[in-house]
This record gives sequence, structure tokens and C-alpha cells, in this order.
Amino acid sequence: MKRNNTGRKYPGLLIAIEGLNASGKSTQVHLLYEWLSGMHCRVFYSQWNTSEIVNEVYRRGKKTKMLTPTTFSLIQATDFSDRYDRQILPMLKGGFIVLCDQYVFTSYAMDRIRGCDDTWIRGLYQFAMPADLVFYLNLPIHLTMQRLHDARIEPSYFDAGMDLKLSQDLFESYRLFQGRMHNEYLAMAKKYDFQLIDATLKIPEQQQIIRKMLQTTIDLKEFKEGKH
Amino acid sequence: MKRNNTGRKYPGLLIAIEGLNASGKSTQVHLLYEWLSGMHCRVFYSQWNTSEIVNEVYRRGKKTKMLTPTTFSLIQATDFSDRYDRQILPMLKGGFIVLCDQYVFTSYAMDRIRGCDDTWIRGLYQFAMPADLVFYLNLPIHLTMQRLHDARIEPSYFDAGMDLKLSQDLFESYRLFQGRMHNEYLAMAKKYDFQLIDATLKIPEQQQIIRKMLQTTIDLKEFKEGKH
Repeated sequence: MKRNNTGRKYPGLLIAIEGLNASGKSTQVHLLYEWLSGMHCRVFYSQWNTSEIVNEVYRRGKKTKMLTPTTFSLIQATDFSDRYDRQILPMLKGGFIVLCDQYVFTSYAMDRIRGCDDTWIRGLYQFAMPADLVFYLNLPIHLTMQRLHDARIEPSYFDAGMDLKLSQDLFESYRLFQGRMHNEYLAMAKKYDFQLIDATLKIPEQQQIIRKMLQTTIDLKEFKEGKH
Repeated sequence: MKRNNTGRKYPGLLIAIEGLNASGKSTQVHLLYEWLSGMHCRVFYSQWNTSEIVNEVYRRGKKTKMLTPTTFSLIQATDFSDRYDRQILPMLKGGFIVLCDQYVFTSYAMDRIRGCDDTWIRGLYQFAMPADLVFYLNLPIHLTMQRLHDARIEPSYFDAGMDLKLSQDLFESYRLFQGRMHNEYLAMAKKYDFQLIDATLKIPEQQQIIRKMLQTTIDLKEFKEGKH
């Protein structure tokens, strides 16, 4: 059944793509963006942790490696709030399809792992609109590790969750931390109606699945330029 | 009746001093600090908005003048959380008297005036321990204005609440904004058991009242160096 404007708070549509590092989120969001623009839909792309205002302090905070879970969580929430109020929300009000490369679910997972109270986290983000569609690029941990290895990339201190002291070895800590993130995402999948995408499939195949899912659940005509 | 350790979550004691700009908070906190140190009490001083980590981003955010109420509130909460986790809480656990030159009540008032949801604000700060004693330096608005004028100080953009568009005139905006803050504080006074100090009295007189109140409600012996 296609969803239409009924029941949505704003004329726009919020689509979130979640997934572990190296799961291919950015690629899929990019392809989706190209496809929607190609069809002359009003579409806007929003990336995690890119707010100019707090980027500097965020980098500094990360650098000092002295952040407690609450502060870490609040810095992330500040960044998100700035981006939400000044980009996402106006675009939703303006009738755009907003593609979010990671949304509140990333914080839900991360903050929980770092030990923040669940109710507190949910309250913190209560200003953020529920997503209309959430895709989770589902990749087994050993493949995440494999891709990291193949790309010869060293994970960053925080991507590896080194602050959690899971292991002194960067790669082992990364594996453990990403494993926990994966579990958190899967635990949220049912509650928030995540569409699980098999991220071991070829890139175009995943994209086809995502597009089809979008076409069958959303009436895209509503978002064509000139309409609305 | 003197309060003792019973019922307190940590061995330390949290004293908050609130008040409008130019009400004399810093002076009173300073004098209180001197007096308590002079009696060899373990005492620690914590000032609003001084966390090193987020200071930079806060300044930048203020500078751009593009902060929405939620983001403004979150930046402040981040700063507070950093200071709370790394200074206030350890000191409370260590049995210190922590003197806070402004505490969560400043945010409660400010965020509400800027339009944040009350329940959301309270939830945001739920990690912060309730204060054991709160003093409010009660100064009528016209005297706040007078002191500002006498000191030949121009209020800052945010101290004047210029982002609220109450008035295009800096001083008029300041008067209106501080007036709203004053009302918010007074509205909280009963709920949070504020001790109202008449800030029109001479500095030493106010200090005497504060010290007396402290002596009659708290068993200061508990905080003497060497004890505990």
C-alpha cells in the first residue's frame, strides 16, 4: 500500500539509510539521490556529523579523548539538532524527499553502547521527526572487517570505540564495537520497521531493491518538481 | 534543622548561586569560597560556560547568530555536561562543597524563554544532581539596568536576548530579556526551594545572610579537611 500525505506531519518525506562503516551507505544514498533527481523529484541529501557550527568543537572534543558518554552524546545531538533545524526540517516543510545518510538511530545505538540511559536518549531526540522509511544495510561483521582490510584503512579512535576500552588493539576494538552497533541496529529493526537490505549483494542489486521498495510504498509523483 | 549526609547521594554538597547579570553572583560566590577555605573546608568553585572542550564551538555558534533554540540549548547542555562529569561530579564524590556560579536553573529559564519544551529541558538535564542549596540574588530589573549603565558596559548579543527579536534596541531588548529571566527564576523559586537574597543590600550584608543560612542548614564540620 502506497503511503501518501495523510498522516505525515510535513509535506516532505524522510528516508534514513543506516548501516555499519563500510556497509556502502554513502554509495546507496548517492545512487538514490541521482535516480530521484533524474525523475525530477525534489530531493535533498543530509549527511551525519557535517554541521559547520559544531564540527570544530566536535573534532576538538574527539581529539582530547576525554569525553564522558553524556557529553559525547550531547555533542552529537547538538550537531544533529543544528542540521535538523536548519536543513532537514525546512526541506520537509518545503515538500522535499530528504535522504539522511544516518539518522537518530545511529545515536540511539552509539549512546546506548557508551552507557547512556535509554529513556534519556529517546527524550533527547524527541524533537526529531520519525523517519518514513529506514533502510539498514545489513553486513556481517567479518565482511566489515574484510572491507576495512581490503581498503587498507585504519579505523579512527572513535569508530573503533577505543574509548570503551574493549581492547587495546585498534582492530580488535573496532570488531567488538562494530559488532555491538550491529546488534543494536538489529534490536531496533522491528520496533522502527527497518527495511533490511542484504549488503553482501552487488551495489546495483541493492539499489534496485531500495528503489523498488520506495516505489511500492511511496507515491513519488507527489514530489515531482512543479507539483505540490 | 541541619542537613547531614543522610539522604544525599554523594558525600559532597552542591550549592548553586543564581541571579541576573550584575546581581553580584561572582562576588558572593568568591566571598563564600574564601570563607569556606579559611575554615579548611574542602571547597570547589565551578563557573557557568567554562568548559574548555566546547568553549570554542560555543563561541562560534554564538558568532554565527544562526542557532535555533534547540541547538542553543544543546550547546549549553554539552558544556554543562562536560563540566559536570569531569569537575562537579568527581568533586561531589570526593566529599567537596561545590559552589556553582549558576547551575541548571539558568538553562531551565533561558531555554524556556527561547521556546524549548519544558519536559524536554527537564529530561535533558536529568543526569544533573539536585542542588542541596540554591541562592537567588534577587535584584529588581531597574537596578540591573542601573548597574549596567553605571559600569558603562554594553550587553552582549545573547545576554540581551537579541536573537528573540524582542526589540531592535540592544538595551531595551536586554531589559525585556532580563525581565523574563527574572520572572522564570521567581516562578522556580518555590518549586526548587530557592533562598531569595535581597541583592540591593550591601555586599557584606548579603554574604552574612548566606553564611548564616549555610551554617544553620549544613553541618560544615563534615567537610573539614582531614575528616571523612
